Amino acid sequence: MATIKLKSIDTRAPKSADKETYKAEAATLKARIGELQNLMYAESKHALLVVLQGMDASGKDGTIKNVFSAVNPMGCRVIAFKKPTELEMKHDFLWRIHAQVPERGMIHIFNRSHYEDVIIQRIHKWVDEKTIKQRFKHINHFEQLLTETGTVVLKFYLHVSPEEQLKRLQQRLSDETKKWKHNDNDMRERELWNDYMKAYEDAFEHCSENAEWTIVPADQNWYKEYIIAKKIVDALEALNMRFPGLKQPE
Amino acid sequence: MATIKLKSIDTRAPKSADKETYKAEAATLKARIGELQNLMYAESKHALLVVLQGMDASGKDGTIKNVFSAVNPMGCRVIAFKKPTELEMKHDFLWRIHAQVPERGMIHIFNRSHYEDVIIQRIHKWVDEKTIKQRFKHINHFEQLLTETGTVVLKFYLHVSPEEQLKRLQQRLSDETKKWKHNDNDMRERELWNDYMKAYEDAFEHCSENAEWTIVPADQNWYKEYIIAKKIVDALEALNMRFPGLKQPE
Repeated sequence: MATIKLKSIDTRAPKSADKETYKAEAATLKARIGELQNLMYAESKHALLVVLQGMDASGKDGTIKNVFSAVNPMGCRVIAFKKPTELEMKHDFLWRIHAQVPERGMIHIFNRSHYEDVIIQRIHKWVDEKTIKQRFKHINHFEQLLTETGTVVLKFYLHVSPEEQLKRLQQRLSDETKKWKHNDNDMRERELWNDYMKAYEDAFEHCSENAEWTIVPADQNWYKEYIIAKKIVDALEALNMRFPGLKQPE
Repeated sequence: MATIKLKSIDTRAPKSADKETYKAEAATLKARIGELQNLMYAESKHALLVVLQGMDASGKDGTIKNVFSAVNPMGCRVIAFKKPTELEMKHDFLWRIHAQVPERGMIHIFNRSHYEDVIIQRIHKWVDEKTIKQRFKHINHFEQLLTETGTVVLKFYLHVSPEEQLKRLQQRLSDETKKWKHNDNDMRERELWNDYMKAYEDAFEHCSENAEWTIVPADQNWYKEYIIAKKIVDALEALNMRFPGLKQPE
């Protein structure tokens, strides 16, 4: 894979893209995700793992709320990976991740993921570079295990500009419904922007062989949601799922 | 690795081995395992995973009871892997295994393991040969993850002769304290002895690169226990563990 430079990738939709057209198309795709999830649950042959990564305020929570608005919660779970617990820290970094992968029939959405272990941990030098290299390899092996045993793994990087992020972080301070999301630490992490971009670029380069990354222009929610919904629908359609017939008596 | 032929490996101790000498030595080693487990728990840097495989009545239960007689149960857990549940069947074969690996400081003993997925499942053709090859690879990757992140993985195959097995299975029928272990199915599986040996040989050949197998002559319990205890003590001694000093105030 060629080296990706995030700086050279637009965080906004192409100028030619018409917002209303994309919004209408996204609405159709979201409804289709609901149908495909129902089919996946019924057939119970495949699973879907959606990994969402991105800087603070890049729109991960909103993506989950809006792109998956039509799914039945019975067949879809969201797992937010926070700071590891003491017990999790005593295990290999994939232990808590593997425990949360979807069984056949299910969609699981990871709000942050094992990629934090090669991004934030790397930037703050909580682990050494040799360990990071090992983790890239372990991640590839892990994703290969999942994909070879029936799980579709779709990884999305929500690509926002530092300007858009700043605007959103400031909005959190003035909007009563968003104040709970404010974290002083986000402003400090923001100063490490270039380190984050480098770490992400490296993760894309080293960890794409078994499950590809989609870099999603994420400054505009309507475009971001369209891109993600489209990718998911295309991946699920490609499975050619069918409703099973009547169960045979045992 | 050269191809292993189980038929050419003795299931009994060498003629020269003196039973009483080995028993005394094994007693010393078992006590030492207790000390080393305590040290491992205190230091909390490493973990030990012991995998026990073998035919029915090869002595897995007895090994656990006797070799680990001196460990504090606080730092040691036994996990017996039985027929997978419906939920486990809907996940990759390593999902339930990974969930049970030891955290740093702990000894976990697997009474049967992920190797059943390339042994019994293969013999009965519940999975195809392509899947078996993939599983060998996934097992190697999984064991590499464990060993590179601080877990010592020791795998033991308890090597009994078909004659010794038959004797033990028959004893189960006449001993009041062992009747509960009898399973009609064991006699049927016995007829597949050669298939089992071939599947084990293949697993040894393909899955030894990250964690080696020890083939333990297991017709005589005193010799079997000595060999396993010795291997465990040697592996734990090699870690050069130290008791930590006083915790620093946070």
